[in-house]
Amino acid sequence: MKKLLLIGIGPGHPDYLTMQAIKALRTVDVFFFLEKEGRGKEELIQIRNDILAEYADSGRYRSVVAKSPPRSAAQGYEAGVRDWYDDKAAIIAGLINDELADGQTGAFLIWGDPALYDGTLTIVQDILARGLAAFDYEVIPGITSVQTLAARHRIMLNRVGGEFTVTTPRALERTPADQIDNAVVMLDSNAAFARYADQDLDIYWGAYLGTRDETLVSGDLKTLAPDLAEKARQARAEKGWLFDIYLLRRRKD
Amino acid sequence: MKKLLLIGIGPGHPDYLTMQAIKALRTVDVFFFLEKEGRGKEELIQIRNDILAEYADSGRYRSVVAKSPPRSAAQGYEAGVRDWYDDKAAIIAGLINDELADGQTGAFLIWGDPALYDGTLTIVQDILARGLAAFDYEVIPGITSVQTLAARHRIMLNRVGGEFTVTTPRALERTPADQIDNAVVMLDSNAAFARYADQDLDIYWGAYLGTRDETLVSGDLKTLAPDLAEKARQARAEKGWLFDIYLLRRRKD
Repeated sequence: MKKLLLIGIGPGHPDYLTMQAIKALRTVDVFFFLEKEGRGKEELIQIRNDILAEYADSGRYRSVVAKSPPRSAAQGYEAGVRDWYDDKAAIIAGLINDELADGQTGAFLIWGDPALYDGTLTIVQDILARGLAAFDYEVIPGITSVQTLAARHRIMLNRVGGEFTVTTPRALERTPADQIDNAVVMLDSNAAFARYADQDLDIYWGAYLGTRDETLVSGDLKTLAPDLAEKARQARAEKGWLFDIYLLRRRKD
Repeated sequence: MKKLLLIGIGPGHPDYLTMQAIKALRTVDVFFFLEKEGRGKEELIQIRNDILAEYADSGRYRSVVAKSPPRSAAQGYEAGVRDWYDDKAAIIAGLINDELADGQTGAFLIWGDPALYDGTLTIVQDILARGLAAFDYEVIPGITSVQTLAARHRIMLNRVGGEFTVTTPRALERTPADQIDNAVVMLDSNAAFARYADQDLDIYWGAYLGTRDETLVSGDLKTLAPDLAEKARQARAEKGWLFDIYLLRRRKD
């Protein structure tokens, strides 16, 4: 039997890996990478290579790189994602069939945690359901940017006895603005927070968390929104990519 | 200056610690523990001591144990928690003032992640705000049981383009049952999921995650609720404590 590991590597520094992830890395024969095109690519590859250099068994593993397919032009967000996943499933099944021998262990390194806003787990299950390849698989959790955001701002995610929501700018739009209470918004990069600047919300914002470019801003969203939107725009223009995340929290008297 | 670390240790196995947490453990002079009374205490102490034995610097650190104050009998949940936090603040401030010398580093080990349903961070900030002790502090994230639940069931927390909520049984009660869509419920132990057995929900349940007693159950809540409530009751009766967590997810056609 072949084995596939989905290893959460945290937000971007080797220190965020767990011992479980490090032990798993050492058992891997083949690391698979789907490369996206675009600026910032080299830096993301560098972070990943730093992790392998520090923890993987250099005498054992090899890396196989394939090109990530372009996002489908299908109508509608969900249909587009579905098509894109289908394209990726074909590529990943091919990698497992061609590059992994029986008894070997392959792995994908996943930013943050495999359970959170990453398609790989869904694609892997789809490959198995459709019989495109045969293998066992395991998921290894990693520190999410949600947690890194809270730790760096030294804030709680929940308030006493309360709840919190993890969402995306697109999903947040379905909530009436005056009902946003305590929401972590991931993968923004277009300053969607500015839409809520008329609300009594505090924002705890972070970009490039866990890397040397980490930036933290917090305070009254009303006051901060214009400058923060400009800061995000500039960061994205300069580096070519922006990973940002923030908590919107309604102020209480 | 004194330094205090709040170190997330994950759900209960040394392998879940991050390298960041392990490096931090090695800098600690004094570990502080607030002991709760009750059954299961020995097992929780054992897990913690395993972590210190494996990763802390045995030539350097000492442990200081204080008794955790009893939960206040004040009226109302939030007032009760506030009183309880006040009592703990007095004890923790005393520990920092009496047991930690200038230039030394103290630490609390926090189950899961310090940002999630744990009072220590709030209490520490309260101590500083009230001037009960002077120190700098840092938060180190840990793998939460939310993530461990998802990894062990090999499920995503979010659906494509969707959101999820992390909540408690008490907070969940404020949501109309037919509006529960994708909610992780923490710290139940009283089988509150049974209240929602008339809904079209799947449940992904886990207890004692990351320990040798780990138990996983998943499927249609309607079918599973009675047996699962009994299983939870038995586990709590046998071990004297139950850490369980589950995801309730509305079924889609």
